[in-house]
Amino acid sequence: MTRRTDQLSLGAFLYPTGHHIAAWRHPQAQADAGSNFAHYAELARIAEAAKFDLIFMADGVGTRGTDTEALSRTAIRYVAQFEPLTLLSALAALTERVGFVATASTTYNEPYHIARKFASLDHISAGRAGWNLVTSASEDEAQNFNRDHHVAHAERYERAEEFADVVRGLWDTWEEDAFLRDKDSGIYYDPAKQHLLNHRGKHFKVRGPLNVARAPQGHPVIVQAGSSEPGKDLAARTAEVIFTAHQTIEDARAFYSDVKGRLARFGRSPDALKIMPGIFPVIGKTESEAREKFEQIQELIHPAVGLSLLNGMAGDVDLSAYPLDGPIPEVTETNGSKSRQKLLVDLARRENLTIRQLYLRVAGARGHWQIVGTPEQIVDQMEEWFITGAADGFNVMPPHLPAGLTDFVEHIVPELRRRGLFRTDYAGRTLRSHLGLREPLHPAHAAVAAE
Amino acid sequence: MTRRTDQLSLGAFLYPTGHHIAAWRHPQAQADAGSNFAHYAELARIAEAAKFDLIFMADGVGTRGTDTEALSRTAIRYVAQFEPLTLLSALAALTERVGFVATASTTYNEPYHIARKFASLDHISAGRAGWNLVTSASEDEAQNFNRDHHVAHAERYERAEEFADVVRGLWDTWEEDAFLRDKDSGIYYDPAKQHLLNHRGKHFKVRGPLNVARAPQGHPVIVQAGSSEPGKDLAARTAEVIFTAHQTIEDARAFYSDVKGRLARFGRSPDALKIMPGIFPVIGKTESEAREKFEQIQELIHPAVGLSLLNGMAGDVDLSAYPLDGPIPEVTETNGSKSRQKLLVDLARRENLTIRQLYLRVAGARGHWQIVGTPEQIVDQMEEWFITGAADGFNVMPPHLPAGLTDFVEHIVPELRRRGLFRTDYAGRTLRSHLGLREPLHPAHAAVAAE
Repeated sequence: MTRRTDQLSLGAFLYPTGHHIAAWRHPQAQADAGSNFAHYAELARIAEAAKFDLIFMADGVGTRGTDTEALSRTAIRYVAQFEPLTLLSALAALTERVGFVATASTTYNEPYHIARKFASLDHISAGRAGWNLVTSASEDEAQNFNRDHHVAHAERYERAEEFADVVRGLWDTWEEDAFLRDKDSGIYYDPAKQHLLNHRGKHFKVRGPLNVARAPQGHPVIVQAGSSEPGKDLAARTAEVIFTAHQTIEDARAFYSDVKGRLARFGRSPDALKIMPGIFPVIGKTESEAREKFEQIQELIHPAVGLSLLNGMAGDVDLSAYPLDGPIPEVTETNGSKSRQKLLVDLARRENLTIRQLYLRVAGARGHWQIVGTPEQIVDQMEEWFITGAADGFNVMPPHLPAGLTDFVEHIVPELRRRGLFRTDYAGRTLRSHLGLREPLHPAHAAVAAE
Repeated sequence: MTRRTDQLSLGAFLYPTGHHIAAWRHPQAQADAGSNFAHYAELARIAEAAKFDLIFMADGVGTRGTDTEALSRTAIRYVAQFEPLTLLSALAALTERVGFVATASTTYNEPYHIARKFASLDHISAGRAGWNLVTSASEDEAQNFNRDHHVAHAERYERAEEFADVVRGLWDTWEEDAFLRDKDSGIYYDPAKQHLLNHRGKHFKVRGPLNVARAPQGHPVIVQAGSSEPGKDLAARTAEVIFTAHQTIEDARAFYSDVKGRLARFGRSPDALKIMPGIFPVIGKTESEAREKFEQIQELIHPAVGLSLLNGMAGDVDLSAYPLDGPIPEVTETNGSKSRQKLLVDLARRENLTIRQLYLRVAGARGHWQIVGTPEQIVDQMEEWFITGAADGFNVMPPHLPAGLTDFVEHIVPELRRRGLFRTDYAGRTLRSHLGLREPLHPAHAAVAAE
């Protein structure tokens, strides 16, 4: 294998108070982050000053879970926080280079709204928008959208496939140069460069055109996170970034080559899709300082919160019926998020963990790659993931905010730069240029180019 | 009648290139306004520096009309422009005092999304958000949302009534002081101060809670624009501002007393609802300069555009089948926007206008109050509307942008101030405080207060 010559990408995954389940209780954490705009404005400035590719926002269209004892003690189950598209639009106005990826569900939205809002954000930010396409897998979300139960996995993905096609089709309803705006002749747009969509499918009928001009990036960047079989196929066909969760480099490499290998089937090159696993770094000047920092935050986890985290992540199985210090029971596959579930059970089996040990183990990274150590130790591993085909970059999940992000920027980013692994300045102005992704030509032009 | 002692409110109604149908062709107009964020940022700064109450954005979830000859010559039929919630969120980050009212349809949205986005904007802006609640009346919008035809008027309003209740209910799912965020005890919120909605109605089933904390204003301000009978009833029950269209002070006064008179039925005082008619001002140092400015922009109207404007405004009647210089034919009531239709027909009958004269007559204000004159003449009339019960303020519709707004700020605002009719500075920081609207207490507290 020849050493790769590109640099890795970095996302700042901003969960309000941080990614650790007890983050908000940390003395340095901004406990009211979910409704403190100044907090997010500061984080965006930090990420941009450090030349991050993007800021990433997860989303849920409802508070997750009904266990009040646990929920009332946590800040991260979408209990109360900004809605991503409004928040990232506001942050776009305060920044000039960093990209913005907002999560929006295909299960309880209409494609016209989604195509329009992301095209609008792409114009507001002058080409820095990305859409993290997800399906909604929780009962709590269903009950906010006229249903008693959530939509089955297969149907969610069928709808998501069609949804993605409609959104991309709407983004193509105007050619790049459709808007002449010629004051003398009075021609505002060239009708020959408008293309109605006239989509009629199983889930959607959408005529178009989109009432936003073609996005500065052609299309906002499409991001996905699902790692089930239908999720990987959808990503191989439509995604340009995958945000993924792996505990080990072996798993990450297997996933990386699996997904990259699927691209050719859709006529795409392996470079057209960037894979960015999550990383939950706890950084210390020494290894023992890092471990102490980690223990300090682990101790803030209330047992009800830890247990409820596993319940949520393990689908519909109620673990509170089992002894806390015993092994996790057999888990049957449910209608929930299958990939997340399998990950957890595999982890417990591999490391022989009790229920309590499992919740302590995943409370930080919640299924993602957790690494506690010195900057050198952490960057050694990031480098290995990057150069051996496990990752094209990382979505950084700070344990608590804002300190977890400033720690990363002050200690990890310089070490990455010393090794030539991360940019010292932005080369371009769009999210696509940061990520090294091609800007899609309008199909009318792409066809001409191919002739 | 005693002279009123309050001051009038001003909204800056920002249509991308301005409100005149040919605005974009004006030499001073920003022709690419619909995708030029810097243009809007500048307008927002101008409105805030002049101490406007709010910036108002209309919306359509689709381009209006299918007449390509006309559409390709216009910038204002929602052909290509920013989506309001993303745009206003971005502008909120650049301002500190001015309010933001975004239009969002109840016909092709889900109440959970709307409640959430406006609560989020209210947090981002620290209490400056308002929602203009509308129904979607056009076939073009229907066809972007899985339908062949648009929803009938009565059904739209039935859905809108329930929609408004669900949104307000969701805004009440958290009490003001629900979030304790007590790091020592580990209690993030007090479960007794969370109130599930558990709404089960004809159109919606929504459990809640909203996953955004209670809005800084309690509720974002609710604005409405409908003036049909069901529209006026909905407004009297739920609205706090009405944006309305009247050609004459008599019509405006009749509407004003009609709507204010309906409030008592819903246990509300007349002060709880502010009525802000649209005003389309063409300002000159002399009356003849103003008339010249008006003629200059009128001459930019292409006949296809003028005619199509009437077609759109007159519902489903195709006026191109009738002679341009003949009278308008009998118009039968359609499923479209009834109030707007009636307004037009009444105007043509009253002034005995031909089709061409009618389109020239309404091309500017498009059914709103158009006034061409000196600052003294314009302010005389605004004052009369304000003090004789025709208006609590005005939604200013500049003919073209940005110059139409700067004209208003430089010439009308100082004259309003000279007469004590408009503030010289903001007294408060929220949209409610600018408008003189009470902040709704949470029902749990309101009940205690009433005991």
